[in-house]
Amino acid sequence: MASRDGDSICSIQMATGVLDGELDESPEVLQDQDETPCSVLFSMPASPSGLHLAQGMAGGAKVQIHDPARPRLMKHARFHSQPSMLIRGGGEAPAMPRSESMRERDRRLDHFRTFSGRLERQLSILRGAVPHEPPADDIECNAAAKNSIEHTEEDNDIPSADRYFAALEGPELETLRPAEVAVLPNGEPWPFLLRFPISAFGMCLGVSSQAMLWKTLSSEHSTGFLGVHPAVNRVLWWASVAITVIVSITYLLKVVFYFEAVRREFHYPVRVNFFFAPWIACLFLVKGLPRPEREIRHIVWYLLMTPILCLDLKIYGQWMSSGERRLSKVANPSNHLAVVGNFVGALLGAKMGLRELPIFFFAVGLAHYLVLFVTLYQRLPTSMQLAKELHPIFFFFVTVPSVASMAWARISGEFGHGPKLLYFVSLFLYASLVVRINLFRGVRFSLTWWAYTFPLTSAALATVLYASEVDNMLTRALAVGLAGIATVTVIGVMVSTVYHAFVSKDLFPNDVCIAITRQRPKFNKILAHLCLSSTDEATI
Amino acid sequence: MASRDGDSICSIQMATGVLDGELDESPEVLQDQDETPCSVLFSMPASPSGLHLAQGMAGGAKVQIHDPARPRLMKHARFHSQPSMLIRGGGEAPAMPRSESMRERDRRLDHFRTFSGRLERQLSILRGAVPHEPPADDIECNAAAKNSIEHTEEDNDIPSADRYFAALEGPELETLRPAEVAVLPNGEPWPFLLRFPISAFGMCLGVSSQAMLWKTLSSEHSTGFLGVHPAVNRVLWWASVAITVIVSITYLLKVVFYFEAVRREFHYPVRVNFFFAPWIACLFLVKGLPRPEREIRHIVWYLLMTPILCLDLKIYGQWMSSGERRLSKVANPSNHLAVVGNFVGALLGAKMGLRELPIFFFAVGLAHYLVLFVTLYQRLPTSMQLAKELHPIFFFFVTVPSVASMAWARISGEFGHGPKLLYFVSLFLYASLVVRINLFRGVRFSLTWWAYTFPLTSAALATVLYASEVDNMLTRALAVGLAGIATVTVIGVMVSTVYHAFVSKDLFPNDVCIAITRQRPKFNKILAHLCLSSTDEATI
Amino acid sequence: MASRDGDSICSIQMATGVLDGELDESPEVLQDQDETPCSVLFSMPASPSGLHLAQGMAGGAKVQIHDPARPRLMKHARFHSQPSMLIRGGGEAPAMPRSESMRERDRRLDHFRTFSGRLERQLSILRGAVPHEPPADDIECNAAAKNSIEHTEEDNDIPSADRYFAALEGPELETLRPAEVAVLPNGEPWPFLLRFPISAFGMCLGVSSQAMLWKTLSSEHSTGFLGVHPAVNRVLWWASVAITVIVSITYLLKVVFYFEAVRREFHYPVRVNFFFAPWIACLFLVKGLPRPEREIRHIVWYLLMTPILCLDLKIYGQWMSSGERRLSKVANPSNHLAVVGNFVGALLGAKMGLRELPIFFFAVGLAHYLVLFVTLYQRLPTSMQLAKELHPIFFFFVTVPSVASMAWARISGEFGHGPKLLYFVSLFLYASLVVRINLFRGVRFSLTWWAYTFPLTSAALATVLYASEVDNMLTRALAVGLAGIATVTVIGVMVSTVYHAFVSKDLFPNDVCIAITRQRPKFNKILAHLCLSSTDEATI
Repeated sequence: MASRDGDSICSIQMATGVLDGELDESPEVLQDQDETPCSVLFSMPASPSGLHLAQGMAGGAKVQIHDPARPRLMKHARFHSQPSMLIRGGGEAPAMPRSESMRERDRRLDHFRTFSGRLERQLSILRGAVPHEPPADDIECNAAAKNSIEHTEEDNDIPSADRYFAALEGPELETLRPAEVAVLPNGEPWPFLLRFPISAFGMCLGVSSQAMLWKTLSSEHSTGFLGVHPAVNRVLWWASVAITVIVSITYLLKVVFYFEAVRREFHYPVRVNFFFAPWIACLFLVKGLPRPEREIRHIVWYLLMTPILCLDLKIYGQWMSSGERRLSKVANPSNHLAVVGNFVGALLGAKMGLRELPIFFFAVGLAHYLVLFVTLYQRLPTSMQLAKELHPIFFFFVTVPSVASMAWARISGEFGHGPKLLYFVSLFLYASLVVRINLFRGVRFSLTWWAYTFPLTSAALATVLYASEVDNMLTRALAVGLAGIATVTVIGVMVSTVYHAFVSKDLFPNDVCIAITRQRPKFNKILAHLCLSSTDEATI
Repeated sequence: MASRDGDSICSIQMATGVLDGELDESPEVLQDQDETPCSVLFSMPASPSGLHLAQGMAGGAKVQIHDPARPRLMKHARFHSQPSMLIRGGGEAPAMPRSESMRERDRRLDHFRTFSGRLERQLSILRGAVPHEPPADDIECNAAAKNSIEHTEEDNDIPSADRYFAALEGPELETLRPAEVAVLPNGEPWPFLLRFPISAFGMCLGVSSQAMLWKTLSSEHSTGFLGVHPAVNRVLWWASVAITVIVSITYLLKVVFYFEAVRREFHYPVRVNFFFAPWIACLFLVKGLPRPEREIRHIVWYLLMTPILCLDLKIYGQWMSSGERRLSKVANPSNHLAVVGNFVGALLGAKMGLRELPIFFFAVGLAHYLVLFVTLYQRLPTSMQLAKELHPIFFFFVTVPSVASMAWARISGEFGHGPKLLYFVSLFLYASLVVRINLFRGVRFSLTWWAYTFPLTSAALATVLYASEVDNMLTRALAVGLAGIATVTVIGVMVSTVYHAFVSKDLFPNDVCIAITRQRPKFNKILAHLCLSSTDEATI
Repeated sequence: MASRDGDSICSIQMATGVLDGELDESPEVLQDQDETPCSVLFSMPASPSGLHLAQGMAGGAKVQIHDPARPRLMKHARFHSQPSMLIRGGGEAPAMPRSESMRERDRRLDHFRTFSGRLERQLSILRGAVPHEPPADDIECNAAAKNSIEHTEEDNDIPSADRYFAALEGPELETLRPAEVAVLPNGEPWPFLLRFPISAFGMCLGVSSQAMLWKTLSSEHSTGFLGVHPAVNRVLWWASVAITVIVSITYLLKVVFYFEAVRREFHYPVRVNFFFAPWIACLFLVKGLPRPEREIRHIVWYLLMTPILCLDLKIYGQWMSSGERRLSKVANPSNHLAVVGNFVGALLGAKMGLRELPIFFFAVGLAHYLVLFVTLYQRLPTSMQLAKELHPIFFFFVTVPSVASMAWARISGEFGHGPKLLYFVSLFLYASLVVRINLFRGVRFSLTWWAYTFPLTSAALATVLYASEVDNMLTRALAVGLAGIATVTVIGVMVSTVYHAFVSKDLFPNDVCIAITRQRPKFNKILAHLCLSSTDEATI
């Protein structure tokens, strides 16, 4: 945990640094940073002073071309970049200085900064800075590149839902297709906050549901024979509180400093569902609270359900009425997250003694789960682009029926026919995914692996409740077995996360889904992209 | 109310007039009518005598070309016509007499008249009239026009479901696309009965459900504190009876005199759902009857449910088995009307003490509502043409769950979990549409605005019942609030209707959805269409 | 019954004969067989000795061309073949001997034989036989033919789901499209086992459910007034046992000797659903057992539900996760068979006193029935190829809700609201299909007609149970009426089956759905196909 905190604090510092331009005083600082263990490499200046510096740098670029440090930097950049297809000009290598291309990229990053807009530019004018004017450049290839970048700046608007699906690929739809050109420089790591996705809240879901599982294991009579000490719940609960607080603060900083990036995540039909995750995680925290205090929780429940209701109205309304974000287009297993919040809320509300509102949320959840379940099972041709192979988020299929089962058991006061039907559906889906487990192999580790943890934990939870209703050796064994699988999975994913965060340092790769251009890149744009690559090549 | 009756009586008189040809004695009458406040302008003769007259007129047309009244008529026609793209011939304006083109249009109207077929033609031959023979005409452009019209006469069959969607546009799918050519003359108002759509029964639904709401408000204990006098119910009930009778008689006249038009409405996948409306309105009338007499109603219930069952078998069968009218093609929010009848019937039947048949209709309704709800929520790509923006019929989403909730509460004898789930779904859908209310702005008033009234009223009704079950300040406030909104909406729509019917006189525009050609107009057809326009232009 | 047995025994003998090559010692044997009433005509040798013989035959073919018996054989072949489009070469007819083309076909059949693979070839090498080497042939057309056949041998893999739908046509999707070339010789009847489809288990379903119906008629109090003797049940039960045993043994032989054909049936999205049929039929047999012995049945239930659960996991998993076998592509009414097994199992399990597992199977069935019902009712454009007209398997729509109704009534212990809702849905669907009965006319008799029997019987069964709950004249009349219709249908279909099996001998036509090439036939393949036909023509 301590190391995680360190990482976060580091990144927060960086983010602050990026803002006031302290880290970017001179090119040398940039090159020094190349050596630091921090994963933020080319943090571009946001403040006008930084811009000014870069401009001055651009003016004297020609003399710096023989700087011995440059080739090393170039090599590094090439190492990070996509496999580059070289288009070499006739004989004369276009001697565009590196710093110029860096400045261009800098302007692209600006686009995502909350405080880099008109306000900052006006401030810089007040302070006497000349408004940025790109110098004339007669290399044709470079002109095309600038053209494309200017075009990008006009495309301030969010890409359409189709564009997201068209531009991304891979089992998790998190990789840019080869033909695509990103708005942000894809070859270099971006600022940490830009790379910190909303799906990081999946960690909170996994750990806080685990806390709830251990509380249930110690309290339910069917698993009483295990003799689980309440301290386990307490430790897990505090751990999940810590993780949730850290993730929340980090993401809040992203909201403040890179609002454009958050907005683009919200418009990406896969990511938008993760905006439910913070509230669901908090609901789990309240539910798993070691010492329940009823008075506090009632208010907390209303506070947590309000954003869920607002998101429901927004997302479900898009499904039904919107043209391009309608369900038949955006359906994918992560939509389950947009539904499960209602059931978690209903479960907690019913446990807290509320009567009507839990039924309200259960009804809303059930109606939309029905639609979602049918749509996902049909695998409509329009949503085929997504999920050609099974991958972690497929496990969300298990979540909703198991949580709904617990919620209805709590609302109706007994684990009767209704909850049993829902529970058995989740059990069947669980089995259906487990027998295909070899299809899940070969998926590279990423944050989405946390999608395994929450469904497994919720299935284990429902099984423990079911075992309390139908108490025999088989159900007890099932409950203990599933709880064991869930715990082992959480530990495994947690260890992997820590390893990737602090050892191999690739937990947060460039989040390309926020860097998609609004329109399919045309030929001259791709050409510009290639020209930039060949320029990099030529300057070495 | 009185003014509405007046309108209806006026239209009935006109319809009769059209039949016996009294209004069309001479061209002068036509021109005089141009001045009259009645909205029927060029009512073409239906009787053989009228045809004969028109024929005589065609013979002596050339001498009338200098008639000073003609240009005024032409101008008027142009004013009404679609924005015309002019194709002017070389230099000689084709001097086609107006009366000839009128005669052609006359024949097009014939196509829709029930009594203009073989029987009438034989009668006219008996009376000595020469069978109509079109005179030879050597203007090429005119030949093309005639060609297209002859083609139209061969297309007696109903257009396919696809054609309806392809030829119409606008939020309500009630406007002809620019490239389309109507079977009927689109520039001039048609006979009143041809313009009277089945969706006029929406008015009956709105007012009769309102009568039921006020009965419930005065009888339920949750709203007893309002002290609503039963007289309100009685007045509203008699008003709805009056409206229903007037609309029914008018539509019956349309069935008798323009059966082809009714047939085309029945084949239009949006309109067909409104064929459920008369029976549902009658069910509401029986339900809202101020003094219930049980013996009479049992028979009435069976009588009203028989056509609903037949329509169910017809429409649902088309959804499932038909090729071109299958659900994935024709799904649109007006389909809710095809489902809600079962629930209204179940509600009334259960209230009347029947046991098994209400469950039957509830089961049929529920199964098909499930299919419909999922289909509409998915927004399949095949049904995308419809409803790009939200518009009044989207409010039908609210109707079915609220009526189903009441029906199940009545069948199960209590407002338990089942009815609550259904009720909360309708409440959420209500909220989901209300937060998008600004999307409903800018929709021109038309009869479909009555689609607002029935859903709002049914939601208010269900809320009153719910408030009787869960009786507290909040639910009472909700019940009174929703009832208020529903009543204000009904009053507003009613006032707008009266205004548009009697002041601006555009309540019943040409109902182009019945005038679609069977096949996509080919180039020569569009050319003919343009030629006719340019002829109009040239003769001025 | 006796005659059916005789048929089966005959076919088993043939299958054995085919294996050890006894029947194919010389061409004369083949011609003799032409006269036998057995429908297996050109059973090609499978053993290496047979192959050797055929090779020798090929060498001396030219002298046999004037054999007087040959033309008769050719004529017969032509009579059976598809309408052949003749491409006659310039003047010289390609004098390819018949026996060579027979040998080629022989190799095609080999592809389907379980014991004709590497093992057999190695054995033949051990025994000193020269590995088969096709002789050089300079006729160009013949080369193309061989080319295509070699290509076929490479296509050992199963065709994709799309290919099945693309290559087949007709209401039952059991006829090859004209442009398609089958892997197997389509002009001649194949070995009996290759023509014996898995859908033959439909007979077992029809008869065993009928046995259960008569047991219920004699035991339920609502139909007690009929005084049905338990002997009827006993006779029917033994008859269904006999049919099931015969069909099972025959199909088991197919599994053993033609595993490739079974594999191809399993991959055909329509046929795969019939793999549930054997287990469902056995469940019915256990359910309809005249004298119930509880101890035996518990184990039997577990044994029968295991394959159903495995198939569930396999098929439903394909619906959800597979690319090309996903539900929106393969949805067709026969999928109901993949769902109904769960309900039949739940019904039997609940009757046997099990508590939780029946609910499990009911839940799994219900969730997937929901998805299937919506999907089939929507008639997605992607699954449009199938079922343009109504045909027998549409009646499966009635089966699931009626069986589910009985199952839930048994699980919940009473025929309450839930079972009634399900029952009424099945009743409505029944009515909905009956009013379209004229669409079912004109469908040629085939084994799929048995699809009428099971749904009608299950609807009658549910009606008898419902009549016991709601006991009045009307429900009793309905129960007796539906039972009568079901019985008459079963008798009618049974008589037709016997007639087609033993009189017109066309009950088992070539099962072309197992003979589809993996890829769409290219031009040279079709050319080769035509060349072979023209060769046949030329040799006469």
